[in-house]
Amino acid sequence: MTQDRVRTVRALLDSVRAKGRTSLTAPEGKVIADAYGIAVPGEELARDVDQAVAYAARCDGPVVLKIVSPDILHKTEAGGVVVGVRGASEVRAAFYEIVKNVRAYDADARIEGIQVQQLLPRGTEVIVGAVTDPTFGKVVAFGLGGVLVEVLKDVTFRLAPVDGDEALSMLDSIRAAEILRGVRGAPPVDRWALAEQIRRVSELVADFPEIAEVDLNPVIATPQGAFAADIRVLLATDPPRQRRTYGREEILTSMRRLMRPRSVAVIGASNEQGKIGNSVMRNLIDGGFPGKIHPVHPRADDILGRKAYKSVTDVPGEVDVAVFAIPAKFVASALEEVGKKGVPNAVLIPSGFAETGEHALQDEVVEIAERHGVRVLGPNIYGYYSTWQDLCATFCTPYDVKGPVALTSQSGGIGMAILGFARSTGTGVSAIVGLGNKADLDEDDLLTWFGEDPHTECIAMHLEDLKDGRAFVEAARATVPKKPVVVLKAGRTAAGARAAGSHTGALAGDDAVYDDILRQAGVIRAPGLNEMLEYARALPVLPTPKGDNVVIITGAGGSGVLLSDAAYDNGLSLMEIPDDLDAAFRAFIPPFGAAGNPVDITGGEPPSTYENTIRLGLEDPRIHSLVLGYWHTVVTPPMVFAELTARVVAEFRERGIEKPVVASLAGDVEVEEACRYLFARGVVAYPYTTEKPVAALGAKYRWARAAGLLGGGP
Amino acid sequence: MTQDRVRTVRALLDSVRAKGRTSLTAPEGKVIADAYGIAVPGEELARDVDQAVAYAARCDGPVVLKIVSPDILHKTEAGGVVVGVRGASEVRAAFYEIVKNVRAYDADARIEGIQVQQLLPRGTEVIVGAVTDPTFGKVVAFGLGGVLVEVLKDVTFRLAPVDGDEALSMLDSIRAAEILRGVRGAPPVDRWALAEQIRRVSELVADFPEIAEVDLNPVIATPQGAFAADIRVLLATDPPRQRRTYGREEILTSMRRLMRPRSVAVIGASNEQGKIGNSVMRNLIDGGFPGKIHPVHPRADDILGRKAYKSVTDVPGEVDVAVFAIPAKFVASALEEVGKKGVPNAVLIPSGFAETGEHALQDEVVEIAERHGVRVLGPNIYGYYSTWQDLCATFCTPYDVKGPVALTSQSGGIGMAILGFARSTGTGVSAIVGLGNKADLDEDDLLTWFGEDPHTECIAMHLEDLKDGRAFVEAARATVPKKPVVVLKAGRTAAGARAAGSHTGALAGDDAVYDDILRQAGVIRAPGLNEMLEYARALPVLPTPKGDNVVIITGAGGSGVLLSDAAYDNGLSLMEIPDDLDAAFRAFIPPFGAAGNPVDITGGEPPSTYENTIRLGLEDPRIHSLVLGYWHTVVTPPMVFAELTARVVAEFRERGIEKPVVASLAGDVEVEEACRYLFARGVVAYPYTTEKPVAALGAKYRWARAAGLLGGGP
Repeated sequence: MTQDRVRTVRALLDSVRAKGRTSLTAPEGKVIADAYGIAVPGEELARDVDQAVAYAARCDGPVVLKIVSPDILHKTEAGGVVVGVRGASEVRAAFYEIVKNVRAYDADARIEGIQVQQLLPRGTEVIVGAVTDPTFGKVVAFGLGGVLVEVLKDVTFRLAPVDGDEALSMLDSIRAAEILRGVRGAPPVDRWALAEQIRRVSELVADFPEIAEVDLNPVIATPQGAFAADIRVLLATDPPRQRRTYGREEILTSMRRLMRPRSVAVIGASNEQGKIGNSVMRNLIDGGFPGKIHPVHPRADDILGRKAYKSVTDVPGEVDVAVFAIPAKFVASALEEVGKKGVPNAVLIPSGFAETGEHALQDEVVEIAERHGVRVLGPNIYGYYSTWQDLCATFCTPYDVKGPVALTSQSGGIGMAILGFARSTGTGVSAIVGLGNKADLDEDDLLTWFGEDPHTECIAMHLEDLKDGRAFVEAARATVPKKPVVVLKAGRTAAGARAAGSHTGALAGDDAVYDDILRQAGVIRAPGLNEMLEYARALPVLPTPKGDNVVIITGAGGSGVLLSDAAYDNGLSLMEIPDDLDAAFRAFIPPFGAAGNPVDITGGEPPSTYENTIRLGLEDPRIHSLVLGYWHTVVTPPMVFAELTARVVAEFRERGIEKPVVASLAGDVEVEEACRYLFARGVVAYPYTTEKPVAALGAKYRWARAAGLLGGGP
Repeated sequence: MTQDRVRTVRALLDSVRAKGRTSLTAPEGKVIADAYGIAVPGEELARDVDQAVAYAARCDGPVVLKIVSPDILHKTEAGGVVVGVRGASEVRAAFYEIVKNVRAYDADARIEGIQVQQLLPRGTEVIVGAVTDPTFGKVVAFGLGGVLVEVLKDVTFRLAPVDGDEALSMLDSIRAAEILRGVRGAPPVDRWALAEQIRRVSELVADFPEIAEVDLNPVIATPQGAFAADIRVLLATDPPRQRRTYGREEILTSMRRLMRPRSVAVIGASNEQGKIGNSVMRNLIDGGFPGKIHPVHPRADDILGRKAYKSVTDVPGEVDVAVFAIPAKFVASALEEVGKKGVPNAVLIPSGFAETGEHALQDEVVEIAERHGVRVLGPNIYGYYSTWQDLCATFCTPYDVKGPVALTSQSGGIGMAILGFARSTGTGVSAIVGLGNKADLDEDDLLTWFGEDPHTECIAMHLEDLKDGRAFVEAARATVPKKPVVVLKAGRTAAGARAAGSHTGALAGDDAVYDDILRQAGVIRAPGLNEMLEYARALPVLPTPKGDNVVIITGAGGSGVLLSDAAYDNGLSLMEIPDDLDAAFRAFIPPFGAAGNPVDITGGEPPSTYENTIRLGLEDPRIHSLVLGYWHTVVTPPMVFAELTARVVAEFRERGIEKPVVASLAGDVEVEEACRYLFARGVVAYPYTTEKPVAALGAKYRWARAAGLLGGGP
């Protein structure tokens, strides 16, 4: 059966291509639809007006007449469609009208006939389609109603093929999802029938990569089924590009030697201050890297007190990483020697490759690397840090605060922002890696490694494009159940994409596709640079929540309102406080304070009120997370609040009770010290903002859901 | 004519109210529609099936039959509507079906007959309506298509009445605006006809405050006109509440004495540390207030070295402000004395009024104040600061950095966050005012004052509700052409509104109404607390742009992409760089750098490249604003960039060329000092974020547009 349908469609597509066409006619579309079980109404192709009358008479009820022409793609625009035609005389009139309209629209259009189609029942109009995304390949799309998809862009995407459950989930992913469930007394549509249309279209494009686009527009969804009024199929002119891929074990083997090297060679090491080859050497030495550091320089004997070699091939023993600090034009020949030496990793700091238009030079480097099995990081990067190895293989300033966050960036400027932010906030990192042009090593390789790296608990990535969206999704799906992955996708907007285009030469895909597919992969998308950095800093600090119930405890009623707004914005569930718990909170707060959620303990309260209510929040198993709003008063100064909160949280942690606690501190400048104190002790706290702490908690929840730790999918 | 229509509707409404009804029947609705020229289709009320057949025969084409019953509001839900009925037998069948459906839906419904209505042409379905908003009063609404308004909430609001231009602007304010302009070859709807429907509905509700709600649903908009298929009118059960209002001059007179007092009395002044009356006295004295400070205390002779009085009536000479630092229960009697003394302003710090449920106590205070003509700030506030007068009339910490920003908050906690943020960032303020329960003085009073205050260049307000939305809009409209007004509206979301409700007892209006009406008033809405604070800090620093052309100059290509995203998000226009300007930029940057916009000068460039391109950006009159992206390198360290940028900006300023310049600094921690240096010199600069500097510029643009300084309305 499956083989049958593939054979049928293969034969059809071959014949279409043999005729040099890339778009299919409606009858050809019907053949494909029938082969894949895509429900379409009964129809026949009338070659003349008498055939049209005869076919219309066979249909039960009114019909639609549509032009069939390989030259007319938008039939309605061309005046090529007449709906609701009944009886012979109406059919004749409509037939002639269509021919006249189409001639007026395009005098040269080849008219193959008029399609006579059973009029579909009234129902909800939706669109089901598939496109070929430059990043993700075959992608299936679903949206509501003709012009609304175009105007309101209410469309959702998934990687093709999808299974039935994924297809069903698409029905809930559009903003207007409620309409499909039936509003104002209207019955719901047949969700399974609709999902089947999506699933079958996704299988069709997965089976035939040469199909560039499929469009069922509209699909009429009723309580009894879903019928495509029209199927449009476009073929690709070029075969899809293939990229060399590596298996998981291959990736881990080379990545292990890159991130935990025992010996590093610096190609272009230098004694001259200000040179990149000097900065890299200094950072390796000053950073305290305990492995071997081998300077390579054509003329020097000694660099920074280490024996220098004329060529990497002269270096004794194995070399795990060769860091290149030489101009672009010398990279190829040096890489040949690195390959001969059997070095598994080349870190190409120099710029002057694809980003400046030197594509041939970059292609040459890739060819050499592939021939020797050398994996390449860069070119056009600042290098990388592997802090737990005390490795600073970079020309930037060293960084030594070891911790749980791995960060990557496609841009050097963003790399420097990562470094400054981390140093300023004392964020512990496991690695900072520049990716630059991504001639070879890509986010998926790094993700595969960081997923296994025991030092890494959270991964944050700045990217402008993905060379292979499917490989990234695969790596993300494998990693997310273990640790959160935060992505800042630059070039979200048309303006940004244009800037990314001029900057990296990468063809940025439509952001809506990125957004849906990254979410499906369980990735936490950061809306901006600062959010990416703050999420990376906060996520490893917060324990994983065990349920959805968030409670706000606040000394400032005003903060409580803003924290509630932020909770809603971040998709958090403010717990409906049961009566007994409400009474328990009330016992600690003044009579005019408000229990409920937020629990408003009021502003003039002593430390004990904060402590009692926080204790209750941690103690009661029905509460899963706490959001604290602190108001600076003389009765409970900032550091008193910080100390009591940290102490209580630590005490419960020792008892095995760990819940995420975040805090917003409103007060004079002493709250800044209090926030640093709290952050260092596992409470994510920020001054002068009610949004940031809640956004961090929201990110943790999004991850916990995606990782399947909260019940309920991504 | 106008009088006629008012008389007609008055008579009708009186008769409806006489019958004890609050909803009008369809024929009654038709009378109102006809009186106000609201286009509705021809129709008649059939009392029996034979009348229905006769009326249908008179109509040109098919008809709609609809139930007429004062008990059925949602006719479709009740099965009370049949569309597209033709000929006698179909009319009879439909008539009986409707009666049967309605009986099944509500056996007790009174059926007055069946309305026989001409079937409207096919067209775009929109909704025009008017509601009574608790904050803004009569508000007219416009949205697209039946269920889509309900599901996608794509609705826009204006204060009623609107003129023709305002009504037209509503057509462009919905997300789906494009549909009305005609998509995919469809002709545009008759915009003026649609705007007329909106304008007339708005006049109807403005003329009759007792009309709570009008609903034209749907209105069928076609290229030839706009017809309401249905008009639904609901009357209010309660007459709208009246609030005492003050004229502009009255407000300015009392506000001037509040904000620039010559003498202040402290009711409840105390020598005892930790008491609010002691803190207030200390802050007044330590703050350096040069006017008279009169402690009032029933028993003390001397407080902090000043002669104390038993009652404010004993104080010699005029008193401008009485600050209350006594428990709530003593406020009323002390206020009587303040009134007798003729003090124009009472600042009520104590809590224990409406916010704790003590409404009667607050009402009593208001009554006393109104009787004596005393204006009341608070109760339940931290007090206020008027920095240019060295006045700290508050129990919080003193603040003395004089500057151009006036900030107000409804919540004490937010007030403390304002204070801490201002101190931490060195933001100069003209005033910080607590509003608390707003028993009397409200944001509109403060806005009226700050609009005139020469020390204030920017006003930022945190609010949870507005007691009188129309007065606020009026004050905002008068102020915005002179200086920007930033509003943080807490309780945006359902969760937030619930928290605000429990906190202030205020009925929070629908946020969509706030959003539209505040924007129409030219107010810059801050999405969160931190944004409000940052906008307040940045807006006075930035000069007003003279046009829309924004140019990004960046050392980091990666920052350029993110800055472009942020520019789009903030509604900024990235200039299309003309060829000659492109060539001029290219002359300064390496050949592999990208001109265009962003201008990517590339990362390794010396200070001169930054300087040359910034100079060009300031010099060329076609460029109106600059966004700088700095990348920390050894060649151009952070402070070198900061100094050159500040120097060039200052040089142009002296030459009379002022353009907003904002900067995102990516680098190691030295960029923090560089940002402080730049901010103090008129360049709005932030480290580790590409979003904040662009958001600040976006806020400045929003204001400039609203103030009419850029051509183009709000």
